[in-house]
Amino acid sequence: MPQSAIEVVVENLEKLRARKPLVHCLTNQVVKGFTANALLAIGAAPAMVEHPEEAAAFAGVADALLINVGTIEPLQIEAIRAAAPAAREAGRPWVLDPVAVGFLSVRTALARELMEQGPSMVRGNASEIMALAGFEARGRGVESGDESTAAREAALELVRKGARSVLVSGRVDLAFDRDRSAAVANGHALMTRVTGVGCAMGAIAAAFCAVAADPFDAAVSTAVVLGLAGEIAAGRASRPGSFQIELLDALDAVDGETIRRLGRLQ
Amino acid sequence: MPQSAIEVVVENLEKLRARKPLVHCLTNQVVKGFTANALLAIGAAPAMVEHPEEAAAFAGVADALLINVGTIEPLQIEAIRAAAPAAREAGRPWVLDPVAVGFLSVRTALARELMEQGPSMVRGNASEIMALAGFEARGRGVESGDESTAAREAALELVRKGARSVLVSGRVDLAFDRDRSAAVANGHALMTRVTGVGCAMGAIAAAFCAVAADPFDAAVSTAVVLGLAGEIAAGRASRPGSFQIELLDALDAVDGETIRRLGRLQ
Amino acid sequence: MPQSAIEVVVENLEKLRARKPLVHCLTNQVVKGFTANALLAIGAAPAMVEHPEEAAAFAGVADALLINVGTIEPLQIEAIRAAAPAAREAGRPWVLDPVAVGFLSVRTALARELMEQGPSMVRGNASEIMALAGFEARGRGVESGDESTAAREAALELVRKGARSVLVSGRVDLAFDRDRSAAVANGHALMTRVTGVGCAMGAIAAAFCAVAADPFDAAVSTAVVLGLAGEIAAGRASRPGSFQIELLDALDAVDGETIRRLGRLQ
Repeated sequence: MPQSAIEVVVENLEKLRARKPLVHCLTNQVVKGFTANALLAIGAAPAMVEHPEEAAAFAGVADALLINVGTIEPLQIEAIRAAAPAAREAGRPWVLDPVAVGFLSVRTALARELMEQGPSMVRGNASEIMALAGFEARGRGVESGDESTAAREAALELVRKGARSVLVSGRVDLAFDRDRSAAVANGHALMTRVTGVGCAMGAIAAAFCAVAADPFDAAVSTAVVLGLAGEIAAGRASRPGSFQIELLDALDAVDGETIRRLGRLQ
Repeated sequence: MPQSAIEVVVENLEKLRARKPLVHCLTNQVVKGFTANALLAIGAAPAMVEHPEEAAAFAGVADALLINVGTIEPLQIEAIRAAAPAAREAGRPWVLDPVAVGFLSVRTALARELMEQGPSMVRGNASEIMALAGFEARGRGVESGDESTAAREAALELVRKGARSVLVSGRVDLAFDRDRSAAVANGHALMTRVTGVGCAMGAIAAAFCAVAADPFDAAVSTAVVLGLAGEIAAGRASRPGSFQIELLDALDAVDGETIRRLGRLQ
Repeated sequence: MPQSAIEVVVENLEKLRARKPLVHCLTNQVVKGFTANALLAIGAAPAMVEHPEEAAAFAGVADALLINVGTIEPLQIEAIRAAAPAAREAGRPWVLDPVAVGFLSVRTALARELMEQGPSMVRGNASEIMALAGFEARGRGVESGDESTAAREAALELVRKGARSVLVSGRVDLAFDRDRSAAVANGHALMTRVTGVGCAMGAIAAAFCAVAADPFDAAVSTAVVLGLAGEIAAGRASRPGSFQIELLDALDAVDGETIRRLGRLQ
């Protein structure tokens, strides 16, 4: 990967901190607090407006929208169905996080329906990406039963179905769009011992979509910056409670020099 | 401000810790855990009873009620509409936190309707206070686009409309009631980098309303104690993750000596 | 208590970490994030699937189910009513946490109705256990007004009504089933200064039910391991914010040697 690819990540992080994009999160009940704190830590601003009558209006004025189907219930589905087209019509980027799609019927149907609204990015683990694309997957709950590389064809299928980019998270994160692909080897195993790190990745991806030249660059920037934050945090904490806090601190601390020195982007 | 004003804050904190008021919080989904932890840290007890059929009964037995409209949906609105009059009829103080009121139509109408129930305190940032009072404001989402001093007239208008006190949070916090005003210059910028600090302020204000002589004293006590906790925490942590934890520790640690030495109340 | 009882706790913790049971949590809105982090810290896997149409299907494939009535609303009640029999029919253990049962009518009726589904364990403080069994109790909100020993008869009544085991938490935790009882004196007062420790206990109990020989052993294992984690954390933090984080770290750190050396099981 040329030096310039890493410089794009540096530039996107600087833009994010300068512009502080307001990210409208329709996300799951387990991770709302952590997601908001992750966005604040990296330099963005969170907002979670869930009332169906307010969600569409807000999606039109926020800088980006995240839709995470982790704990959908009928009213949130109504808000989601109103917000996605509102974001699209207002020219705002929006990210789809298909949490636990596959075995669970309501969210799987909803996530497939949302694909018709042309998400700027789909962000999921390999099992979720494979299930969303209609491939056979091995996930149960929120943990992936598959390596990210197993989802390559499924990710490309989602691009064909209208996703402007796909970010498959795992030990190696993979980013795709119609013409490009990239692999990011940053990150740390402790990130799987804290709830909501994957969900926060979707929110950070939405923030990067608001400032990057295109969703593929946003996906790569997200994977590098969050992965590096995980590595910084793992250098300071070895257990999941303190790691969670160090991860937030590291999202605040990561900078251009860290990215240039430690970014593992191919 | 005479020495006695600071002594009132010291006394209110001692009363709070002796009586451990049970604060019923009908608050937003992002901050429920942090709000409960903030109440426990300062010495109060949280409870969040949301079922419409239970909320009114519980509002009549808890020591104070917080209504925060940050993530209202129809059922919570029903619980809120039942709880506010129940608290009032039982002679329990209640605090209104008009989160993101202004652009968003459902919560703005609801917050204005709730003003008819005569809140003991309205707690918001300048943009929210101005919007609730019908003045032009510049907020978008939960961040204020205005300095707290810009909300002075709006705060007084809310007092005229039936709020027993108003607490405008910002770099300088301002407290008002029918006859008095005060400015509290405690606090730290890191408090805006953690989600829910403003919302926890509303809950702490409700706890102080349960023990203070009147809501104005509760507002001043809230601003001094939380602001000092922020300063103590900022002396121990410089990034948002660890600051969040230090803030909870500081709510437990702040005491009369700290208040007398560092309280900045005018 | 014979040495072998402590060895059962050691073995159950090893089994839990080897099998990583997937715990389906239908729990309250205040503690979802902390509960998920506590399960991840001890070595289990959390999932929170709330949509009524998904909850029953998921309860049949998860390794255990937790039902916590702390912030029930109509849709969650529907999910709960579908999930409990689904878990039972699939032969999966399930734990009932009757948060604040007593004064509040909807949850009290629901918890009593759920007793008909034969929970593997009921986990509550003394006031909740007494109220659920129809005895007079002194709780208000989530704090118990009674010592755990006061709930002995009530716990035995719940066993007679179909609970396979009962875990009464307090300064001393008490476990019961049809034939046995045990007292666990591990724990620390700071555990009552962090929201959701009791609720996380219910989730950890569900995880232990998935690996232990029977629910009584799961109850004892839960009380010893969580109590010891509290003691380890209190050795490293003296205030509630940092204690919360140390508690998660300690759930990850506690091991057979700690259990053998410091377990206080009678």
